[in-house]
Amino acid sequence: MTNHLDNMAVILAKRPEGLPNPDDFKLENRPLGDRLSGQVRCQTLYLSLDPYMRSVIAGNHMGHGVDPGDVIAGEVVARIVESDDADWPVGKVVRCQGGWQQFTDQPPEALSRVPAALSRPSLALSILGMPGLTAWAGMVQQAKVREGDMVVIPAAVGGVGAMAAQLCKRAGATTIAITSGSEKRRIATETLGYDHCIDRIEDDLAEALTRTAPNGVSVYFDLVGDPTLTTVAQQLSIGGRVVLCGLIKDYNGDHKTAGPHPGLWITKRATVTGLVVYDYESQRQVFEEEFVPLAEAGELVANEEIHDGLAAAPDAFCDLMRGRNHGKVVVRVGE
Amino acid sequence: MTNHLDNMAVILAKRPEGLPNPDDFKLENRPLGDRLSGQVRCQTLYLSLDPYMRSVIAGNHMGHGVDPGDVIAGEVVARIVESDDADWPVGKVVRCQGGWQQFTDQPPEALSRVPAALSRPSLALSILGMPGLTAWAGMVQQAKVREGDMVVIPAAVGGVGAMAAQLCKRAGATTIAITSGSEKRRIATETLGYDHCIDRIEDDLAEALTRTAPNGVSVYFDLVGDPTLTTVAQQLSIGGRVVLCGLIKDYNGDHKTAGPHPGLWITKRATVTGLVVYDYESQRQVFEEEFVPLAEAGELVANEEIHDGLAAAPDAFCDLMRGRNHGKVVVRVGE
Repeated sequence: MTNHLDNMAVILAKRPEGLPNPDDFKLENRPLGDRLSGQVRCQTLYLSLDPYMRSVIAGNHMGHGVDPGDVIAGEVVARIVESDDADWPVGKVVRCQGGWQQFTDQPPEALSRVPAALSRPSLALSILGMPGLTAWAGMVQQAKVREGDMVVIPAAVGGVGAMAAQLCKRAGATTIAITSGSEKRRIATETLGYDHCIDRIEDDLAEALTRTAPNGVSVYFDLVGDPTLTTVAQQLSIGGRVVLCGLIKDYNGDHKTAGPHPGLWITKRATVTGLVVYDYESQRQVFEEEFVPLAEAGELVANEEIHDGLAAAPDAFCDLMRGRNHGKVVVRVGE
Repeated sequence: MTNHLDNMAVILAKRPEGLPNPDDFKLENRPLGDRLSGQVRCQTLYLSLDPYMRSVIAGNHMGHGVDPGDVIAGEVVARIVESDDADWPVGKVVRCQGGWQQFTDQPPEALSRVPAALSRPSLALSILGMPGLTAWAGMVQQAKVREGDMVVIPAAVGGVGAMAAQLCKRAGATTIAITSGSEKRRIATETLGYDHCIDRIEDDLAEALTRTAPNGVSVYFDLVGDPTLTTVAQQLSIGGRVVLCGLIKDYNGDHKTAGPHPGLWITKRATVTGLVVYDYESQRQVFEEEFVPLAEAGELVANEEIHDGLAAAPDAFCDLMRGRNHGKVVVRVGE
């Protein structure tokens, strides 16, 4: 006899065209059968929503994707509820690619530990998770941000931007947020400590950068692609560094943006590096050892936007892809 | 009474549209009057012809240009024929921006020394001059070419390419030339020591790269822009380095090429740097101290294409801009 465990899941109903809409998703029960021997059953506590998922559901993210009828993929923090593995006992909190659902069975090698010192598990999905690691890889490892730098960060109050801003401030750099709307501008300067904030809708970006950074931008963390990329690139100081990390416009499938003319990189003597956070998995422990204690000591702001219940995920994701989020978007799925 | 010194010069007759033609230039006598006190009179020995001059005569090279009616600008090696300056005595050979003419009067601060050990002054315009310094800056300083690298060099037998290939070989890298025609292919592999050669007209570049560099290209020295830039970028290995240095298609004014999509740099985890050789003037002595002795010892190939007489300069330059040169193009103006 097989036991069934009810398991609410969010399924891709159809591939979105352009910006995703809530009806591209549907909620279904996808019950789990008996757990296979050697697998570990996990109950999702928090689900991370990230812009790169837009290309996953388009079917073309770094060579893998989700098809209509599949559970949406995504990183979660989960609690082990069934296990025979002594290294992964019941009750332990882990990180894994659980997807948009309440339960999954995982092989032990697919589980990552969550730092034991972490009192709030959602942090393992935000400033101490992939967005935080991305910010650290981009600003500390690749751009090597230092005192005196003038750093521009778009998507400024999102998961990556929030941590990037704090890393830059700790390095003694000056930070300029690009965001939109009075609430996000307030979060940027009051909560996250950006020195300056440019509204990407209300302000003329080129003019605002000329005024805010009259000596030029020395570091740009590109999370969005064109037209912001080209506009900021034109304002680089000589020897400026650009970390290319995200292309939110392309994720929505609007178009393939071209990026700046190569002559601009020559004229600016720029150093441009591509960042894929997966390359930094091996350095995650180094990152955690430095920043978990700071987070626990209250010296880092997480700025999470937590939504309640799996059913809230589609709306929250659609808002995220429209830039309507006010922080790193996390969905509380279980307790 | 004023003395006049006859001075044949090449003048810009009109701005070229697209590829330059010989009738965009004219030869004129521009006699020199008395030398001003404090100036040094120089007789041109060799004139360097370089692709960047195409943007100079378009009026838009790094913020300066040459207008119709002006003598064409260009770097020369010259002998001092009149001087009151003890540091720059008559007979000394110097490098300066003499332009396309037989004589110029220069302020001492506009003169650069030519290494005394140099037995062939034209080398100060080729592998030991700006092209050589460019190759060293790109391959040694920026790309940091090392053993095991697979390096692609377009414009492979030109001034920069010739020295770049030899620097890469000395570092233990494998080199792939991109050039055209049987004579240049022969020069690339037999004279300059490239390991492989791709004909940019007869071969399919993408296919040839896949075959020649099955593990990908680790370093690309971009001297030409698109479409070569994008095709090679697609063949980069993970972590590949690209030095952006020239945009020969744009110099001809054909179009502003866009360059690779930024997503490609991300996927490849590429490091892309812009190179302007003027930034390396302060390191020229370091460069010369290493490579002048090697050149004198016959351990470096110059591969110069020397044309005789100033009147040959327009044709030689027009051929250069059509890729018809077989080496670094130098014009012998005087003895």
